[in-house]
Amino acid sequence: MSKLLCVGTVAFDKIETPFGKTDKILGGAATYIALSASNFDNIDIGIVSVIGEDFPQDYIDIFNKRNINIDGLKVVEGGKTFFWSGEYHNDMNTRDTLDTQLNVLENFDPVVPKHYLDAEIVMLGNLHPAVQMSVINQVKSPKLIVLDTMNFWMDSELELLVKVISKVDVITINDEEARQLSGEYSLVKAARKIRDMGPEYVVIKKGEHGALLFYEDEMFFAPALPLEEVFDPTGAGDTFAGGFAGFLAQSKDISFKNMKRAIIHGSNLASFCVEKFGTEKMLQLQDGELKSRLANFESLTQFEINLT
Amino acid sequence: MSKLLCVGTVAFDKIETPFGKTDKILGGAATYIALSASNFDNIDIGIVSVIGEDFPQDYIDIFNKRNINIDGLKVVEGGKTFFWSGEYHNDMNTRDTLDTQLNVLENFDPVVPKHYLDAEIVMLGNLHPAVQMSVINQVKSPKLIVLDTMNFWMDSELELLVKVISKVDVITINDEEARQLSGEYSLVKAARKIRDMGPEYVVIKKGEHGALLFYEDEMFFAPALPLEEVFDPTGAGDTFAGGFAGFLAQSKDISFKNMKRAIIHGSNLASFCVEKFGTEKMLQLQDGELKSRLANFESLTQFEINLT
Repeated sequence: MSKLLCVGTVAFDKIETPFGKTDKILGGAATYIALSASNFDNIDIGIVSVIGEDFPQDYIDIFNKRNINIDGLKVVEGGKTFFWSGEYHNDMNTRDTLDTQLNVLENFDPVVPKHYLDAEIVMLGNLHPAVQMSVINQVKSPKLIVLDTMNFWMDSELELLVKVISKVDVITINDEEARQLSGEYSLVKAARKIRDMGPEYVVIKKGEHGALLFYEDEMFFAPALPLEEVFDPTGAGDTFAGGFAGFLAQSKDISFKNMKRAIIHGSNLASFCVEKFGTEKMLQLQDGELKSRLANFESLTQFEINLT
Repeated sequence: MSKLLCVGTVAFDKIETPFGKTDKILGGAATYIALSASNFDNIDIGIVSVIGEDFPQDYIDIFNKRNINIDGLKVVEGGKTFFWSGEYHNDMNTRDTLDTQLNVLENFDPVVPKHYLDAEIVMLGNLHPAVQMSVINQVKSPKLIVLDTMNFWMDSELELLVKVISKVDVITINDEEARQLSGEYSLVKAARKIRDMGPEYVVIKKGEHGALLFYEDEMFFAPALPLEEVFDPTGAGDTFAGGFAGFLAQSKDISFKNMKRAIIHGSNLASFCVEKFGTEKMLQLQDGELKSRLANFESLTQFEINLT
């Protein structure tokens, strides 16, 4: 059984979209990553994150019920859980952050549980690059380290972020972030420059426009599934990353060919995430739904053409 | 040999992009459509359009050299050719129109040459819906009518445009136009509403984000090929439409399965169009380049996944 270590925030989110708004609900990068990865079989998923004493048992139970190991989820006595609040615009592609309360994240010093020090796959969700680096320094020769990050760290901690990037095998960032990080507008050029920074694989997420995987001189593109309704994009990128890492952990194959499949699995899971608020849809997801929608991805993209 | 009738503007364009600017060069929807379609074999391509006396013989020669029939290209004595000037922004996805001089287009009454009245495929490029309707009324039971249009006509001639849409088999419009025409933000819902207006097939062009084909309950997506450099997007949509229609005319097969291939061929041709200013790249295009890049589309999108 492959071990998958998921690092990132476990949080309260408060979300407004044109379709409605939520109270404080379960959120955070590690949450979405682990929930997404838990749809795969024969993997041992552990979380490294931090919460406050205000984090409810109901949410803890969600992890337990899915066999997501939370030995690495530190509870800070008297502390308050990280809180993020945001409002999506009408196009659902852009959002304003209304409030960010770091709380227990402010002094978070991650400790990887002994059981996960030899994890085959490490999925570093969006967090301070110092936390990500600390985890990289603790784990022992994982087969694959996948990094997700955000423009916020490019603005505030670029030097450290670049060091983290140099240590990972796969980076997943969105198109604007790829442009910012590389100084190149063309995503082909941007990916090449980012590969030169360290990662063999670069995944550029384009939200509703799909995702690109770059490796050596090869490119692969997975569309996002066009949907009837998008209710809430929160967590879609993390769900994508969790599906990507979870599938790789299950299949124990980190070839380019298998990464293409992993990108499709990630896109498949993300397509469900956005259909309801927060983690709601991810908590109801049935295996049959996943398989049936995978077939949609196939019919959406596959064609036969005579190349002779 | 299938006959393909191409209707649209033949124009002078003056283009500015972040990479440079042109003098007055050859442009127009019918020009790009016909040039693109001329890459296919065994099709008889005719243009219906209008020019002024200022249109140079060199440009006429371009059509003649590619066996594009210009019997339907009316020359207005003393008239001036339609002129459009535009400037692209840094993102190359948005542009400002700097100048539009309708000139001979203002009183254009199209006459389909007798030889093309029984054209199998009619490609109606962007033009006043009254001109498009006149052509529809002249041709005799074509196998397929493809319509391209723009938001300009939705703003100014919606009622007439809706009548034209009700008469065609395929409509190609961009994502914003699909949203405007349908009043739906979701492209899945937008396509359904537009299909209810008449066309069996709806193609939604998303520029650098690819194109979607909708038919009954099916969807197909073709990515745009990620490129090192995009110099000038002018004519890309028309080149896409010309490749789509040209391939269908060559293969004499208007099934959904073959339309998927046609979308890939259209995307392939459009990927070349944007690599140089105006029609420059389209005039140098070699058959080998087209085939080699088609293989890139295949490797970009094709994957094997176990659905059981």
